[in-house]
Amino acid sequence: MNRFIQYNPVKWIFGKGSINRLQAELAVYGKNILLVYGGGSIKRNGLYEEVLGKLNDDQVNVYELSGIEPNPRLAVVHKGVEICKKENIDFILAVGGGSVIDSAKAIAAGAKYSGDVWELISQGKPITEALPLGTILTLAATGSEMNAGLVITNTDTNEKIDWHSQYVFPKFSICDPTYTTTVPRDQTVFGIVDMMSHILEQYFHNGEDSNLQDSFSEITLKTIIETASKLLEEPENYDYRAKMMYAGTIALNGTLQSGYRGDWTAHIIEHAVSGIYHTPHGGGLAILFPIWMKYALASQPARFKQLAVRVFSVESTGKSDEQIGNEGIQALQQFWESLGVPSRLSHYGIDSSRLEEIVDRAMIRGEFGRFYPMNRKKVMEILQAAL
Amino acid sequence: MNRFIQYNPVKWIFGKGSINRLQAELAVYGKNILLVYGGGSIKRNGLYEEVLGKLNDDQVNVYELSGIEPNPRLAVVHKGVEICKKENIDFILAVGGGSVIDSAKAIAAGAKYSGDVWELISQGKPITEALPLGTILTLAATGSEMNAGLVITNTDTNEKIDWHSQYVFPKFSICDPTYTTTVPRDQTVFGIVDMMSHILEQYFHNGEDSNLQDSFSEITLKTIIETASKLLEEPENYDYRAKMMYAGTIALNGTLQSGYRGDWTAHIIEHAVSGIYHTPHGGGLAILFPIWMKYALASQPARFKQLAVRVFSVESTGKSDEQIGNEGIQALQQFWESLGVPSRLSHYGIDSSRLEEIVDRAMIRGEFGRFYPMNRKKVMEILQAAL
Repeated sequence: MNRFIQYNPVKWIFGKGSINRLQAELAVYGKNILLVYGGGSIKRNGLYEEVLGKLNDDQVNVYELSGIEPNPRLAVVHKGVEICKKENIDFILAVGGGSVIDSAKAIAAGAKYSGDVWELISQGKPITEALPLGTILTLAATGSEMNAGLVITNTDTNEKIDWHSQYVFPKFSICDPTYTTTVPRDQTVFGIVDMMSHILEQYFHNGEDSNLQDSFSEITLKTIIETASKLLEEPENYDYRAKMMYAGTIALNGTLQSGYRGDWTAHIIEHAVSGIYHTPHGGGLAILFPIWMKYALASQPARFKQLAVRVFSVESTGKSDEQIGNEGIQALQQFWESLGVPSRLSHYGIDSSRLEEIVDRAMIRGEFGRFYPMNRKKVMEILQAAL
Repeated sequence: MNRFIQYNPVKWIFGKGSINRLQAELAVYGKNILLVYGGGSIKRNGLYEEVLGKLNDDQVNVYELSGIEPNPRLAVVHKGVEICKKENIDFILAVGGGSVIDSAKAIAAGAKYSGDVWELISQGKPITEALPLGTILTLAATGSEMNAGLVITNTDTNEKIDWHSQYVFPKFSICDPTYTTTVPRDQTVFGIVDMMSHILEQYFHNGEDSNLQDSFSEITLKTIIETASKLLEEPENYDYRAKMMYAGTIALNGTLQSGYRGDWTAHIIEHAVSGIYHTPHGGGLAILFPIWMKYALASQPARFKQLAVRVFSVESTGKSDEQIGNEGIQALQQFWESLGVPSRLSHYGIDSSRLEEIVDRAMIRGEFGRFYPMNRKKVMEILQAAL
């Protein structure tokens, strides 16, 4: 086993009625609360009123920042930082999915930083403090509710960059699957692709003797696959939504990673693409991940074989590891296509005109790919294969 | 899935050389450190010198409390609390296995409590603060390095009681498998029985739709079983020790529990037995757990069947659930006996003379057993079957 440090102080409050903990959790953090949310979905499903009701009981001062979009943008983070500084915000409450939570994390960091928060993110600067934040999750997807990462897009520079700091771990995350029963099909599906991609990114590592951790990942992937079709048939089924929400959180809260550092190439290339084209993260991953897999297959076929056999039950008799691995990749691709996601970048109107720019963005922090090392040439080949 | 709150803020520092993080982790907690350890093993294997070397580099004031025994006792906790109060201790560093860590947790709570720490433990009183503590683990067994529980024995009253508080979570736990390579065979084996029992206690719950969590538990059990025989043949093998240390921590750090509350009958009865007889915890569990399983089997045979088939690969064709479950229990018992643990309380010189007293102790907090409810009569029957 590899060496590791695992630290995750988020209080994970899971299940029906979890919101009843909200006041008790908030009580220690002060009176000025910035409520961060997205578009109108939490107003349509009643969650907005429910949260405000809980907050008013507490006689707290609620400030609001709404309109967070998918692929959340720096501009709205700046707006949030300004409110925090002006109104002496004590606590940020993010109500939404990964974009809302990521924005809240960036605001929390920026509120305690004298310079521009984009300096922190773009230069990967460490911090020593941030405003405390908590979340009420409304979408099973990114896992941001129980980790210390965020991804923000600067639309001025077309940069979409991830950043991590232990100071932006949510203090608590209220994860009630009820709030996800009205999530539209396309967002549900993109969430499924996103959480599966997180598991796969970690699964493709170069550590040895990882059978126990591998098995955890394989079972979680199988559970997601088995649950997905049932959930899409019965989108309001609490139990299916609960299983998916649970899987989305453990996919990226450290449980599946201990000691092994994953590849993350597909994510890095996807960020470069959607930083320019603002395509849905899940859609981009659904296109790029299988193509990366085919590209990396020959370098370490045994790992792909293991995934194929253990997750997709590919029959292995009489086949080479590479053949078996390839059948596993095809099975993944077919599963994602069965959910209705695109398999080509052209679906989003992306052609070869800006590929060099995408490669530049992907390479901005230098070479990457812990399982299968990347360089400019390889990134370009993957993009061309994805058009 | 069930509702749950999962919170575990321990920084888990795992692997060879983890001790090099010690000074950085300690730096924020002040200068007066109470070093808590057991007998001579950390002096024999050089760890004591290594730790002192790290601490002296930092110019901290080190106070020592040694001589913590298995089934740690209230008297030594009292001694530790006294040192903390007298010397203004800032931080407690526990170097050892579960007994040392549990003692350190009790001292941490007692140091910030005006009354007798036994009031907290025996009356299950909540606290609002404790001294910070950290651990350097030397035995893969109890999981105490990454949870908020402790078990202390009061030898005046023969009470052995568990207590939990979020304030006694270690701030960090340094888990270097190297320090376990010299653990004697009997302690290694008792550790294996202990961690397997923790998983099994949680596995026997009444929640529904737990296939994902069940699978995590089953894989961890299988990994422990597969690793145990290899480890006993090559006790100094780092990789086997690493796998066992990792398994011992995840067995009781929340990973395998999410949403499901286990039975814990075997532990409660074992604590009652060893509170009086001071028998090894792992030895008592090895005797009592299979007997409890046989006793509970008929109430919910499907759960025992699942364990038998998935962990012990029991062939199920043409057999009733109860038959299959019973073969699984036998397989567990045989595995534990193959490690050399006892299967009868008489092995420890326990006869029927004090059974009523043991039952009294077990029932002290009222009826228990979430999977299979217990009462006086049933506890007595289990004890009689275990003699």
